[in-house]
Amino acid sequence: MTRILGLDPGLRITGWGVIESRGNRLVHVADGVVCSSETGSLAERLAELHRGVLDVVARFAPDEAAVEETFVNRNPASTLKLGQARGAVMLAPALHRVPVAEYTPKTVKKSVVGTGAAAKDQVGMMIRTLLPGAELKTPDAADALAVAICHAHYRTGPAGLAGYRGAV
Amino acid sequence: MTRILGLDPGLRITGWGVIESRGNRLVHVADGVVCSSETGSLAERLAELHRGVLDVVARFAPDEAAVEETFVNRNPASTLKLGQARGAVMLAPALHRVPVAEYTPKTVKKSVVGTGAAAKDQVGMMIRTLLPGAELKTPDAADALAVAICHAHYRTGPAGLAGYRGAV
Repeated sequence: MTRILGLDPGLRITGWGVIESRGNRLVHVADGVVCSSETGSLAERLAELHRGVLDVVARFAPDEAAVEETFVNRNPASTLKLGQARGAVMLAPALHRVPVAEYTPKTVKKSVVGTGAAAKDQVGMMIRTLLPGAELKTPDAADALAVAICHAHYRTGPAGLAGYRGAV
Repeated sequence: MTRILGLDPGLRITGWGVIESRGNRLVHVADGVVCSSETGSLAERLAELHRGVLDVVARFAPDEAAVEETFVNRNPASTLKLGQARGAVMLAPALHRVPVAEYTPKTVKKSVVGTGAAAKDQVGMMIRTLLPGAELKTPDAADALAVAICHAHYRTGPAGLAGYRGAV
């Protein structure tokens, strides 16, 4: 049994999802979001996100973590903002020696829906099918569960091992 | 007396510098760099940077910290990488309730050299003049001291207060 934490980092809202990979079976454990207050300074907001994810790591003690490789083709200011949130979020499992794999959005969609060009609601529908009991309170939590499912599929293959060093 | 930590974040090399602002006088305390090993995964490298800066925060107990607002006009992949390093680095003082101010590169140069369009070596020369005893082992440490000097100038003015909420 391997417990996997999926993360979908964002400065305002970071989604998280925990699943268990038991042989060929995937089991939903929990999902949710960590938010930062928009009134804080950047450093304070990063600290809020980090503490929230540290709390999730402490509560669910995942064996491995996975994060979607951010889509970088937007404006530089947003990319920087997202990068900062991503750094603060990925750090939480890393500081607890939980390895963090990275997957491209295409690989995540492909492993959940079977095609890399899936629509948002297709992903949500497939997650409900793959993980009975998942509440998917928010789209961010759904995206976090999707990357956790992706890691469950890839972690034992060569792509999964490569995933620990760079995005597939 | 206020002890200020300046930070110049980078994924490979992060510069840091500590100064003291005593009335009208600035005193050099220490400077150096934290490096991440290029063989590690992204998450491992972010953890290395974060631990290194945490160590500096613990050793020098700064009252306030300052970081240069990253120049975002480069390619998206570099911006993302830098953002991640920046998030991991800024988090270290923030988690210890040390406020982190941000300043644009132009404001930093202006406060050190008197003009926003200063060349790199002019900045280094001025830092040696402003902070007798500074070793400036590397350019990254010099940049970190520069942002610390900038914060010493701006922290008590209206721009300094604004700096806590966003870059000047």
